[in-house]
Amino acid sequence: MVFNSMLDKINSLKYFYWKKDFKLESGSTLPGFQLAYETYGNLNPPRTNVILIFHALSGSSHVYKDESEIGGWWDEMVGVGKPFDPSKYYIICVNILGGCYGSTGPSSINPETKKPFGLSFPIITVHDIIRSIKLLIDHLNIESILAVTGGSLGGFQTLDWAVSFPNITQSVIPIATASYATTFNIAFNEVQRQAIFSDPNWNNGNYYDGELPNVGLRLAREIGHITYLSEASMKEKFGRDLRYNPEYEFQFKEEFEVESYLQYKGTSFTKRFDANSYLYITKTIDYFDLRKDGNLSTMFLRLKDIKFLVISFSSDWLYPTSQSREIVYALKSNGIETSFVEIKTSYGHDSFLVRCADLRIVVANFLKNLNLQGKK
Amino acid sequence: MVFNSMLDKINSLKYFYWKKDFKLESGSTLPGFQLAYETYGNLNPPRTNVILIFHALSGSSHVYKDESEIGGWWDEMVGVGKPFDPSKYYIICVNILGGCYGSTGPSSINPETKKPFGLSFPIITVHDIIRSIKLLIDHLNIESILAVTGGSLGGFQTLDWAVSFPNITQSVIPIATASYATTFNIAFNEVQRQAIFSDPNWNNGNYYDGELPNVGLRLAREIGHITYLSEASMKEKFGRDLRYNPEYEFQFKEEFEVESYLQYKGTSFTKRFDANSYLYITKTIDYFDLRKDGNLSTMFLRLKDIKFLVISFSSDWLYPTSQSREIVYALKSNGIETSFVEIKTSYGHDSFLVRCADLRIVVANFLKNLNLQGKK
Repeated sequence: MVFNSMLDKINSLKYFYWKKDFKLESGSTLPGFQLAYETYGNLNPPRTNVILIFHALSGSSHVYKDESEIGGWWDEMVGVGKPFDPSKYYIICVNILGGCYGSTGPSSINPETKKPFGLSFPIITVHDIIRSIKLLIDHLNIESILAVTGGSLGGFQTLDWAVSFPNITQSVIPIATASYATTFNIAFNEVQRQAIFSDPNWNNGNYYDGELPNVGLRLAREIGHITYLSEASMKEKFGRDLRYNPEYEFQFKEEFEVESYLQYKGTSFTKRFDANSYLYITKTIDYFDLRKDGNLSTMFLRLKDIKFLVISFSSDWLYPTSQSREIVYALKSNGIETSFVEIKTSYGHDSFLVRCADLRIVVANFLKNLNLQGKK
Repeated sequence: MVFNSMLDKINSLKYFYWKKDFKLESGSTLPGFQLAYETYGNLNPPRTNVILIFHALSGSSHVYKDESEIGGWWDEMVGVGKPFDPSKYYIICVNILGGCYGSTGPSSINPETKKPFGLSFPIITVHDIIRSIKLLIDHLNIESILAVTGGSLGGFQTLDWAVSFPNITQSVIPIATASYATTFNIAFNEVQRQAIFSDPNWNNGNYYDGELPNVGLRLAREIGHITYLSEASMKEKFGRDLRYNPEYEFQFKEEFEVESYLQYKGTSFTKRFDANSYLYITKTIDYFDLRKDGNLSTMFLRLKDIKFLVISFSSDWLYPTSQSREIVYALKSNGIETSFVEIKTSYGHDSFLVRCADLRIVVANFLKNLNLQGKK
C-alpha cells in the first residue's frame, strides 16, 4: 500500500504477533493480530524505566526520528536532553489496532479471505487497544511502567491504561484530552467520515486494488486540520493573505493562503494514511467514554498510588481545558496526587505536537520526581 | 427548480427588475438582474419608518411569516409586539444576488444562452449586493432609512450599507458579525465548497437538468451547521445520547443523536437550497473586508451622525465577540454614538436566530430612541 511505503524507511520498527483469537469489546473476535512498535533507549536492569507513549488519530509508532530518515511525530518531546530522554528511559510506542502503520487494521489481509479486511474489520475500542498493547508489554517481560503519556486519542489511552492496569503503573500524563468524546468531537468526526463515504472511489471500503478515495480523505483531513488549529493561530499565520496575486481574482480556486495550506495538508495526508483506518479510528474516538453511567470518580477508586500530571492548552477548543478539569476533579475527589497545568498557547489542539517550552519544562520536572527503581 | 418551490407559497413576494447592465466589483457585468423582496407594514407619510433587514448565507427575503404558510427566518424578531414591528415600521428584506430565492443567481437563466448560468455567473461581493438593494430602495422612492440590521453575512451588509449610504441612514444594528471574513471563516467556507466540488453530480456547476449534487451540499451544510452551534449547546442538547439502541452498535451508521441531527439538517437543506448558490455566497463572505489596508477606522470617517448598536454573543466562535469589538473600537475612535452588547447565550452563532429575550429587549430599546420622522 502507498501509505505504508514509509514503513520500510523506519529502521527501528519491530513487530509483535499475537496468534490467538482476540475478543473485542464489541463482541467480535479478531483472529490474531500484529502490532508494529518502536523502542528507544535501554531497559535498566530492574526493567523499571519504561515510558509508554500512545499516539493520536494519525500518528504511528514512529515517535522519534532517532537514526531513521523520517522525522518522528513527537521529536519535540522525545530525544536526548528532551523530557522523554532515551538516554534515561526505555521508550515504547505502539501503532494502534485499526491503524495503517504496520499494526493490523482494515487494510491488512484477512487471513480467512486472503483479501484486505476493508469494512469486515471489526470496530476497535480504546480498551481493545490498551489490552493489545498490554500483551506486548507482557511479552517484553515488563512489569513496571514509569509513565504512560499521550495527547488527544493518546490521552484517552493513558486514562484507560491507568484504570485497567493501576498496579504496574507509577504515573500518567494525559495531554490535551478528555475522559470521553464530546458531542462536538463526534460531530466533527462524523462529517469527516461523511467526506470519505461520499467519495465514489471509497466503494464501501473496497478500494485496495483500485483508485484510492483520496478526494474524500483529503477533505476529511482538511476539516480535521481546522479543528486542530485555533482561530488566533490561523489569523496570525495566514490572515487574509493571498497566495498568488496581490488582488482578488474572483474565481473558484484556492486563492487565500489558508486555502492552499489546507489543500496541501489534506493532499499530503492522502500519501501517508488509509481512508478506512481514518474511519475506524474516528469511531474508536467516538465510542470512548471512561465514565460509568456518567460518573468518572468511581472509575478512579483503585488508582490511589498513581501520580497524575494533567495538561491542557488554553487555545484548544477541540479538547478544551474544561474537559481536563473534569478529569482533575474526579482524580482529586479520590485523593489521587494530581498536578494540573493549563499551558497558554495559541496553537489550538496541535499545541502538544509543536515546540512548546512550557510543555517540556512541566513534563521534565514531573518525570524527575518519579522513582526510576519502580513503584514504591 | 426544487429549491424554489416554496417561493410560490409566499404571498408577499415581490420582484424588482433592473434591465440595464450592472457593473460588478470584480469587473464583470451582469446583464440586468431581478431581486425578490418582501415588505411588511406600511410606509408612514414622510416615508421615514423603513427598516432594512439583510439576510445571512442561507436566508431569503422571507423574514416574517405574516399571512403566508411558511415561517420566516426571523419570526423571533419580526412581528407585532416584537422589536421589528410591522405595525410601526415598514420592513423590507431582499433576497441577495447570487441567492436562490427569487433573485438572480447561478441557477437563473442566462439571457444570452437561455440556459442556467451555473459557473458562468459572476462572483458577487457584499458591496454589489448593497448597490443592487439601493437601486430597489430608490425605485421605492425611499430616501430615509430608520435602521439597517442583519446577522452574520447580514451584518456585513449593514456595515457596507452604512459606509456606502451614510446620509440616508439613521442607525445600524450589526449582529454576530465582523468587518471582514477571518481566516477561520475562509477555512470553514473552503471545506464546505470542497464538499460540493467533490460530488460528481456537481459536474462543474452544470447539474440543473440532471441529478443534483445533494450529497456534497448536505455535507457542506452539516459542516456549516456545527460551526453555527456551540460546544456547550451541542453537549446540552445531545450529549452522547444514542438514537436507536441503549447499547453501542459498533457499526458505521448514524448512531449518536448528534449524527442523526446533522444528517437531518443537511438533508432538509438540500430540499431548499441550490449548491451553486452555496458556493457563490460563501465566496461573497470570504471576499468581504471592509478595511482599507487593514484599517477600519478610516472607513467610518463619514458616519458621524449614525447611531450604532453592535451585538455579539458570548458562545459564538465563528464570529466571536473580539470581531465585534474591532468594529466598536473603530466606531468609537471616530466619535460615533455606539452601543455595544455582548449577550450571554449558549447557542453559538445561531443565537441571533433563536428566541432570545435579551436580544429583543436590547434592539427594541434602541429602536425606541430613533426619530421616526427621519434623520435629525
